[in-house]
Amino acid sequence: MTTTEIPNWLEQRAFLTPDRIAIKTETKEITFLQLHNHALKKANQLTYAGVKKNDVVAILMKNSIEMIEVIHALKYIGVITVLLNTKLSNQEIEWQLIDSKTNMLITEASFHEKTIHFDKNRLFIEDMPSLPEKAFEVEKTFSIEKTDTIMYTSGTTGQPKGVMQSYGNHWWSAIGSSLNLGLHQDDRWLAIVPFFHISGLSILYKSVIYGITAVIHEGFDAKKANDAIMKYGVTIVSVVSVTLTRMIEELAGRTYPKSFRCALLGGGPAPKPLLEACIEHQIPVFQTYGMTETASQVVTLSPEYSISKLGSAGKPLFPVQIKIERDGIIAEPNESGEIVVKGPNVSIGYFNRPDATSEAIKDGWLYTGDIGYVDDEGFLFVQDRRSDLIISGGENVYPAEIEAILLSHPHITEAGVTGVEDKQWGQVPIAFIKLAEEGILNTDDVIYFCEGKLARYKIPKSIYIVDTLPRNASNKLLRRKLIELIEG
Amino acid sequence: MTTTEIPNWLEQRAFLTPDRIAIKTETKEITFLQLHNHALKKANQLTYAGVKKNDVVAILMKNSIEMIEVIHALKYIGVITVLLNTKLSNQEIEWQLIDSKTNMLITEASFHEKTIHFDKNRLFIEDMPSLPEKAFEVEKTFSIEKTDTIMYTSGTTGQPKGVMQSYGNHWWSAIGSSLNLGLHQDDRWLAIVPFFHISGLSILYKSVIYGITAVIHEGFDAKKANDAIMKYGVTIVSVVSVTLTRMIEELAGRTYPKSFRCALLGGGPAPKPLLEACIEHQIPVFQTYGMTETASQVVTLSPEYSISKLGSAGKPLFPVQIKIERDGIIAEPNESGEIVVKGPNVSIGYFNRPDATSEAIKDGWLYTGDIGYVDDEGFLFVQDRRSDLIISGGENVYPAEIEAILLSHPHITEAGVTGVEDKQWGQVPIAFIKLAEEGILNTDDVIYFCEGKLARYKIPKSIYIVDTLPRNASNKLLRRKLIELIEG
Repeated sequence: MTTTEIPNWLEQRAFLTPDRIAIKTETKEITFLQLHNHALKKANQLTYAGVKKNDVVAILMKNSIEMIEVIHALKYIGVITVLLNTKLSNQEIEWQLIDSKTNMLITEASFHEKTIHFDKNRLFIEDMPSLPEKAFEVEKTFSIEKTDTIMYTSGTTGQPKGVMQSYGNHWWSAIGSSLNLGLHQDDRWLAIVPFFHISGLSILYKSVIYGITAVIHEGFDAKKANDAIMKYGVTIVSVVSVTLTRMIEELAGRTYPKSFRCALLGGGPAPKPLLEACIEHQIPVFQTYGMTETASQVVTLSPEYSISKLGSAGKPLFPVQIKIERDGIIAEPNESGEIVVKGPNVSIGYFNRPDATSEAIKDGWLYTGDIGYVDDEGFLFVQDRRSDLIISGGENVYPAEIEAILLSHPHITEAGVTGVEDKQWGQVPIAFIKLAEEGILNTDDVIYFCEGKLARYKIPKSIYIVDTLPRNASNKLLRRKLIELIEG
Repeated sequence: MTTTEIPNWLEQRAFLTPDRIAIKTETKEITFLQLHNHALKKANQLTYAGVKKNDVVAILMKNSIEMIEVIHALKYIGVITVLLNTKLSNQEIEWQLIDSKTNMLITEASFHEKTIHFDKNRLFIEDMPSLPEKAFEVEKTFSIEKTDTIMYTSGTTGQPKGVMQSYGNHWWSAIGSSLNLGLHQDDRWLAIVPFFHISGLSILYKSVIYGITAVIHEGFDAKKANDAIMKYGVTIVSVVSVTLTRMIEELAGRTYPKSFRCALLGGGPAPKPLLEACIEHQIPVFQTYGMTETASQVVTLSPEYSISKLGSAGKPLFPVQIKIERDGIIAEPNESGEIVVKGPNVSIGYFNRPDATSEAIKDGWLYTGDIGYVDDEGFLFVQDRRSDLIISGGENVYPAEIEAILLSHPHITEAGVTGVEDKQWGQVPIAFIKLAEEGILNTDDVIYFCEGKLARYKIPKSIYIVDTLPRNASNKLLRRKLIELIEG
């Protein structure tokens, strides 16, 4: 058997439907043929700049057409692309660049300070127009097995790991989604989520694979998002609870047109009042469950079940299987356990982490660490994301990662982080610390210490100095009991 | 890398959307859950009857819900299914059963005479209701590489070959089609083509993979086909020129509703007057090019190009690549040559014919034997199907196969078959023969001799007794020159 190869996505799309609109921003639209031509030019320029097949190139950019062109250009050359979160601190970025063995960083002038440590092979997008071009051999086909992108995610260990997403992972994710949501030639998918997250990147890929328009906004603005739906034909939007809530507020009683057929709601459990508001305003909300390791959604709930299965994430996409495991045994319906998923969109593994890979992925089954159950009819209910994961404004925040930073301070001897509810962000992290000596630090000192080391959204919103942290018999931190320290 | 596995299609579909209508006939509809339950029951019965995983089982049946249930049941067990053309003669059926090493034949009472030679493991569908059941292990997933079905096709040699279609071939065909035509949740696909042909079978698979309704008619009836579109919500229909022509005639000036979004026109080149009639009646006709070896369509022309690219079969489906080869070199645009296609829907090969396989499929590229060119914009124009292929009412007729039968007569020393235009069938075969001795046979004798040996549609409509057949210097029959013998 030869490996499955798919024609170069953008090149094939530009050949099949050259004149359809690929990308629409607030001020500009470009067709698939134009996008292809721009990507090809950038690929020639990057070749001139020394990028070659099988290199690892990182991108640290804000959502823009240029960023999309670079993403495709790197595929034309056959590069593995690392997508960096723009909210990360200098130190976090440096760590990911080193860990991924990045050969070149493509970024923008506004991130000059943030990436100053990587001055060796740093290319600013603003400098590209003047770069000469050099011919190279365009990748005519993409191999299903080849690594396309790497996105970093942390786990319970606090050490970020590079999730490798193959061309096949992305392809099957797009296909699985289309078999669930359908695919209309006039679809327009609004991207208000960053492309360095899988929820954003997957929109770009779907646009090219489906031949539909991706409408992109640089950041999230509720009015602009609503305008895109009300005036500019957007039919699908990917949202998290925070953004959807603001959009409904901004809507102020108006209703969306019928052409708007899907609000794909991911990034953590949806609050019940939000789902009820969606029903009230007839918003076709599809709750989803997915993660970086599954190259986007794997489980989705159709609006027809919004009420009867309130709180459920739905059923798996067609190519996906799920099971609930409890002490290595498959749980009965309605019995809680670890959510385990299998399918061709499950990541091929963590970059350079064979141990972490074989621990998380066994015989193709991904052990998510999330807790949930499946009801009698097969609907998944997610009860707890990775036991201690905090989701703040759609961003994953791992307590262990913050604790590791806190513990790196010479005067902090113990640290525990947990999430508390927050009206604006859903959840925010708070920290509990034990000092080496009473009064040696105050909470402002601790916050100041975290700045630069942690992305802003990871910096604890409150710091509590305590005498002792809740631990079990084997002295393992009981993060869920932390909250009792302030409730009491 | 582990092999890509997809959950058992019908089982997964019945789990995901149990209550959607899977099949609708003129008198009955069944949901996906019912279809699954029926298929499971039949699989249990077939297990009782001795069928087991990796067996080869042939089906000779007319389109019906029962046939669909059997097709799925065999997949549940993990059987390779041979789909037999009901129009074949006794001898042809016997040949295919032997060649495919079939363990069991599932047929219906009306084909008792036709299959009398295979009385050992013959199961009549009418006898199934009384068969006991026996449990077996349901195939929970389908491996992309595994052979699912075998369909026989002839080539220039006249010897039919069993085209193996893997689960992956069918899967990718369905996906490629959805990326081209889109996928609407309320789609209903009308099947008036037999399920033993890939054009029919692929509708059943799409129904299950997409979660849409297959509307099935036992045979073709223009009024019923039009009613299905006008009254029963059919949105897509697969047709050949002959059937579409009759549907337009029966329409008698009425227009189809807007919900009817695609007439997928395959089975040979479309006559220009038919395409013009489609434009006149605003029928969304998509011309296609495909074959058994590509598990259905690989090239499709959207209606927007019906006029500007009249006569073209269109551009490839997203996962497919095409090229035109001329003496081993890729032809220039507008230059004719052999049509060569590559993609994950290209057959894994001919059953038990490694030589024929390696001759037809090289490095994943299928040499179709068809002649055509690609224009400046990449549109394919098919000029000649396999040089000597006759397409009669959508059925492929291979001259060499008929010639072989004619030459098996002791008094026929030379034979040549070609196609002539026919108002009703598009083309029909005619034969030219040379006798061992003048007057030893008349044309009626020859027709009588063919009956039972050849399917009715392959029996020459006229027989011409001639003194000499046109041959080239190396004495190779020049089939295209045959027609001159009667034109002169």
